[in-house]
Amino acid sequence: MKVSAIITLKKDVLDPQGKVIHQALDGMGFENISEIRQGKYFEIDVNENDPNKAKAVVEEMCKKLLANLVIENFKIIETQ
Amino acid sequence: MKVSAIITLKKDVLDPQGKVIHQALDGMGFENISEIRQGKYFEIDVNENDPNKAKAVVEEMCKKLLANLVIENFKIIETQ
Repeated sequence: MKVSAIITLKKDVLDPQGKVIHQALDGMGFENISEIRQGKYFEIDVNENDPNKAKAVVEEMCKKLLANLVIENFKIIETQ
Repeated sequence: MKVSAIITLKKDVLDPQGKVIHQALDGMGFENISEIRQGKYFEIDVNENDPNKAKAVVEEMCKKLLANLVIENFKIIETQ
């Protein structure tokens, strides 16, 4: 089954990339934006039919490789 | 309100970054993965209280700047 992981910077961590995108959109006429933050997204196809086990595997991946837990949070979503 | 946009490569487009992550995870002992695809994630705080209007604004942003529609798909999710 497919499981998705969304990794975002923690609230207090500066996001220069998001700021640049904000400025670019501002310059294009999108003026009513308060903030943009960029994150990473992974769609992982795990050979596992039990949703809870699949999520547990992805959680371990996030902890060990995908996310830097010092500055990032992760969220796991069931896709299928 | 906050709206999120998830941008992923289309199915037929190669994802070398995802492949490398797959190999890395494989080497770390996560062996039951069929595929990993990486995407981008944006959390956009729009000054707009109507969810439909906020989503429409974010959709336009995706079309004009955030996504490359030739090779990428986007999905818009209401966060708050």
